[in-house]
Amino acid sequence: MNLNEEVELLKLVPIFSKIEQAKLKLLAFTSERVNFAVGQEVCHQGDPGNTMYVILGGTADVLIDTAGGQIAVAEMKKNSFFGEIAILCDVPRTATIKAKEPLSTLKITKDMFYRLVAEFPQMAVEIMRELAHRLEDTNQKLRAATKAA
Amino acid sequence: MNLNEEVELLKLVPIFSKIEQAKLKLLAFTSERVNFAVGQEVCHQGDPGNTMYVILGGTADVLIDTAGGQIAVAEMKKNSFFGEIAILCDVPRTATIKAKEPLSTLKITKDMFYRLVAEFPQMAVEIMRELAHRLEDTNQKLRAATKAA
Repeated sequence: MNLNEEVELLKLVPIFSKIEQAKLKLLAFTSERVNFAVGQEVCHQGDPGNTMYVILGGTADVLIDTAGGQIAVAEMKKNSFFGEIAILCDVPRTATIKAKEPLSTLKITKDMFYRLVAEFPQMAVEIMRELAHRLEDTNQKLRAATKAA
Repeated sequence: MNLNEEVELLKLVPIFSKIEQAKLKLLAFTSERVNFAVGQEVCHQGDPGNTMYVILGGTADVLIDTAGGQIAVAEMKKNSFFGEIAILCDVPRTATIKAKEPLSTLKITKDMFYRLVAEFPQMAVEIMRELAHRLEDTNQKLRAATKAA
């Protein structure tokens, strides 16, 4: 894939959609594309981690260790991002992410993440928005679970 | 309180702590201080809202409507912020916030929020960090509740 095709692809990712063309070229140029085969782990719960990933294609399972073994709690699709909690909170990986379909990702290191946020505030807004949505969604599930218990 | 005292106070709030002195003056100058008496509501669940609040002093209850009536799910203290979900996700207030002790807040409008994030990326990072912490905390509670059910 050439640089222009890569830029077109990045433009479709919501957290990058408001970033201007010239800056997206820089992002395409400096970020790393990493592919994972079905069943391969992108990261493992409990491991240290300082990279986040944006899914450019394919799907992945979000797996959590429980007393009864590993369970799938969610599925991540194209344009989803993950790994930001380890970057932001300096904690080990909070879940295992495993490719369910052949997975194409954009790998963003911690350093690059902070540079991107400083340079592209709109990206920070989109990440905050997604975190706020996830938080609200999880809160609703928690209320339902507490009520059911 | 004069402007310099206000700046000193804002400096102690984590989401503003990395913002330089001169810019904090601007923030102190352009933001609004709003106080609430014990029992007074800052916002009401279900209402539209486009302001966030940072608690500068006092405590507040976070109340949620349930089939069995309103219940307190959390307490917010000095330096906590709330109301950002309504701003980021364009949804009605997800909870009622009521002063438990005399409450002093900094009121930040939606417009100002986006200007602040663009101008002070470090504030965006601190808000993302807090949202990520809350998300991880809620996820852990959800797992515990699901396990107990």
